[in-house]
Amino acid sequence: MTRSPIVAQAEKAKLASRVVANASTNVKDDALGLAAELLEERVGELVAANQVDLARAEEGGASDTALDRLRLTDGRVRSMIEGLLTVSGLTDPVGSVVDGVVRPNGLRIERVRVPLGVVGVIYENRPNVTSDAAALCLKAGNSALLRGSAAAFDSNKVIARTLRSALSKVGLPEDCVVLAEDTTHEGAVDFMRLDGLVDCLIPRGGPALIASVRENATVPTIIDGDGNCHLYVDRSADLDMALEILVDAKTSRPGVCNATETLLVHRHVAERFLPKARQALPTVELVGDAATRSLVPGVALASESDFRTEFLDLKLAVAVVDDLAGAIEHIRRYSSGHTEAIVTTDLPTAETFTREVDAAAVVVNASTRLVDGGEFGFGAEIGISTQKLHVRGPMGLEALTCVKYVVRGDGQVRS
Amino acid sequence: MTRSPIVAQAEKAKLASRVVANASTNVKDDALGLAAELLEERVGELVAANQVDLARAEEGGASDTALDRLRLTDGRVRSMIEGLLTVSGLTDPVGSVVDGVVRPNGLRIERVRVPLGVVGVIYENRPNVTSDAAALCLKAGNSALLRGSAAAFDSNKVIARTLRSALSKVGLPEDCVVLAEDTTHEGAVDFMRLDGLVDCLIPRGGPALIASVRENATVPTIIDGDGNCHLYVDRSADLDMALEILVDAKTSRPGVCNATETLLVHRHVAERFLPKARQALPTVELVGDAATRSLVPGVALASESDFRTEFLDLKLAVAVVDDLAGAIEHIRRYSSGHTEAIVTTDLPTAETFTREVDAAAVVVNASTRLVDGGEFGFGAEIGISTQKLHVRGPMGLEALTCVKYVVRGDGQVRS
Repeated sequence: MTRSPIVAQAEKAKLASRVVANASTNVKDDALGLAAELLEERVGELVAANQVDLARAEEGGASDTALDRLRLTDGRVRSMIEGLLTVSGLTDPVGSVVDGVVRPNGLRIERVRVPLGVVGVIYENRPNVTSDAAALCLKAGNSALLRGSAAAFDSNKVIARTLRSALSKVGLPEDCVVLAEDTTHEGAVDFMRLDGLVDCLIPRGGPALIASVRENATVPTIIDGDGNCHLYVDRSADLDMALEILVDAKTSRPGVCNATETLLVHRHVAERFLPKARQALPTVELVGDAATRSLVPGVALASESDFRTEFLDLKLAVAVVDDLAGAIEHIRRYSSGHTEAIVTTDLPTAETFTREVDAAAVVVNASTRLVDGGEFGFGAEIGISTQKLHVRGPMGLEALTCVKYVVRGDGQVRS
Repeated sequence: MTRSPIVAQAEKAKLASRVVANASTNVKDDALGLAAELLEERVGELVAANQVDLARAEEGGASDTALDRLRLTDGRVRSMIEGLLTVSGLTDPVGSVVDGVVRPNGLRIERVRVPLGVVGVIYENRPNVTSDAAALCLKAGNSALLRGSAAAFDSNKVIARTLRSALSKVGLPEDCVVLAEDTTHEGAVDFMRLDGLVDCLIPRGGPALIASVRENATVPTIIDGDGNCHLYVDRSADLDMALEILVDAKTSRPGVCNATETLLVHRHVAERFLPKARQALPTVELVGDAATRSLVPGVALASESDFRTEFLDLKLAVAVVDDLAGAIEHIRRYSSGHTEAIVTTDLPTAETFTREVDAAAVVVNASTRLVDGGEFGFGAEIGISTQKLHVRGPMGLEALTCVKYVVRGDGQVRS
C-alpha cells in the first residue's frame, strides 16, 4: 500500500503541535502580529497568485459564484490581516482551570484546558479560510493541517507560506501550519483518515463535503452543518417586531447559515401578517402552503423539498400553522439543528418553545442572524457546530481546546 | 435495500426521547426506584434467564473469563439494584445553566444543559451494563438504545423488560429503554450507522469493538478506549511511596483500564528501586529492557509489543529511562491517552510532566487506579473516555448531556 503524501505532512504537524501546545501566549501573539505584517507586505504577490487561480477556474468553466468565492480583492486581504490581529487580541484559553475539587482522601483534582493537538480543516474555495482557521488553531495552541480546494491552491500556498515564515521568525516550528499538497478527491479521503495524527477534523463547506466526512472520516469531527433556520410568528407576537426581525433574518445576508429559510405563522395572525411580510420583502421569492397562497397572491406552492432546503438566497418558504405545537412539529421535521426563532409575547409559549425545540440555538424575539461568534462576543469563530458532542453553536477558541485532568496527591492509593 | 430491524427500534427510542428530555427529576427518579424494586422481585427470573445464556455459551465453548463476565450471581444482581438507586440519588444535570451573558445590544444569552437525545451503547458480555447504562442515560434525560452481545441476550431481555415496566408505570414511554433484537455482526454495523436517530454512540468493549466503531460508525461517538497506563518513578521520588503506589496500581485490580501496565524508573534510582519492586510484586510477571534485566534476575526481555500492550493481567513491563525527557518520550510513544502517573518530590519535574504528557488524566504522587468516576466523586460512570472531544477521562452524567443556547431579546436584529 502506498502511503498517502498527507501522512508525512500530518506527522510534521503533529511534531510541531507538541511545541506550540506549550508556547506562551506572547509568542503565539507575536507570530500572529508578524503574520499580519508579512501578509501586508505580500498583498501584491498574493493577489497575483489569486489571479492564476481565477484564470484556471474561469478556463475550467467555474460559475460566477464560485469565482466570487475564490477572488481575493485588496479589501478581502485586508480582512484577513485584520482577522489575524483580532485573534492575537483574544484571551488565550490554554491553561485555564475549568474546575477543581479536593476529594475526601486529599486528592486534588483539576480540569485544565489544553490544546487538541492537530486540528484538520477541510474547506472549499474561499482562500481566507487558510488564514482565519490557522490563526484560531494557533492561538488555541494547535497545529493546523489545512486542505483547501484545488481551485484555490496558488492563493493558499502564498498564505500558508506567509504564516509559516512568521512562525519561524518567532521561534515556533513552521509546521504548526501545514497546507495539504494533494488536492485530489482521493487525497480528501486520506485527509479524513489520519488516525492518531489528527485530533479533530472540521469540514467547512457544503452538504457534499459534510456527507463525505460523515461517510469517510475515522478521526473525531466537528460538523459545521446546514442552517435551515425557522422563524415562527406566534399569535401573541408583536407583529411590527416580527416584521422587522423577519426582514433582517431573511435579507440582511441571505447567503449565510443563520439566515432564516422558512417563516411559520400562527393561523390567527396569518391574515394580518402575511400581506405585510409580502410587502416588506419585495425582492424575496415566496413559496408557501395552501393557506399562505390563499392569503397572498402570486405565491407558488411550496414543495416538501422547499421546506427541507437551505436556500441561501432571496427565497423564503412560508407555512401557516394551527398552533405552537404545529410550529414545533414543523421545525422538528425540517430543522437542521442550527437556529430556530420565535416571536411571541406569551411567556408559557416562549418557555415551551425554548424547551422543546432541539437546536444549537433557540431565539426568542430576535433575529436568527444574531447566532454568530461575533455577536456572541467570541471575537472570531471557526464555524457554527450543528452537532451535539463537544461544542454546539458558534465555535470560538474554546472549541479548539479540550480538557485534561491533573490529579495531585501525596501517596494516595485505591485499596 | 432492506431496512435493518434496528431502524424501527431506534425510531421508537427517538420518539420516546422527546418525552423523557422534558421529564422532571422526580419522575425519572421514581422510574429508577421502581426499576430497582421490580428487579428485586425478579431476581429468580433473571438468574434463570442467565442460566440459559450460560448454558448456551458453555456449549459454544466460551472461555472461563467469558463465562465469568456473563454470569449473574445474586450478588451481581444486588449491585445492579444498588446501581439503579445510586443513579436515582445523583444530581440531575438537565436544565442547569452553564454560563450566561448579556451582550451590548441587550441580547441575553444562556447555555443550558440538555439531554443528548438517543444514546446508543454497544457492549459485550456483561449483562449488568444493560441496567447501569440505561439508568445513567435515563437520569440524564436520554433514551437508551442498547446492544448487548448475543451471548447475554436472554439476561439482557429480562433486565430491559424490567426497566421498561418501571418506565411505563411512572408514565414515561417504555421506549426510553430499547434493547436491540438483532445481535448479528451485520446488526452491529447497522447499529453504528443510525444517522439522525442516534445522537451519541458509546462502545464499551475490547479493541476489536473499538476498531469496528472507528471504521463503521457514522454517528458521533465517545470512545472508551484502552488504558495502557504508565507509572514513572523519578530520581527524586520518595521510593517507599513509589512502591506503595506501584503495588496498588498494578495489583489492586489488574483487569481494569486504570491499572498500570508499564513501570518506568529513572536510572539513578533503578538499582535501589527495582529489586524492591520485584519483591513487592511476588505474583506479577515482569518483562523488562536490558537495564532492568541487569538489575533484576529472571526478568524476560520486553518486546516492543509488550510496551504497547494493555495486559489486563498480573504482568508488568519495566524500562529504565535516562531522565524525565526519556520517560515522557516513552509515554508519548506507547500511551493510549488514558492515565499517566509520576512519583516525584521535585516541583519543576512534576510541572513538566503534567504539562507535557498528553492523556485524559495526569497523576502526581498517587495511583493510576484513582482515575475513576467513583473516586472522582461522580457517583457512577458510563466509562472512561480516551478521546479529546466532548469528554475526556471518567464520564459521569454530564457526559450524557450537551448544551443548547437560549437567546432572549426584545426585537434585536443584526443590521
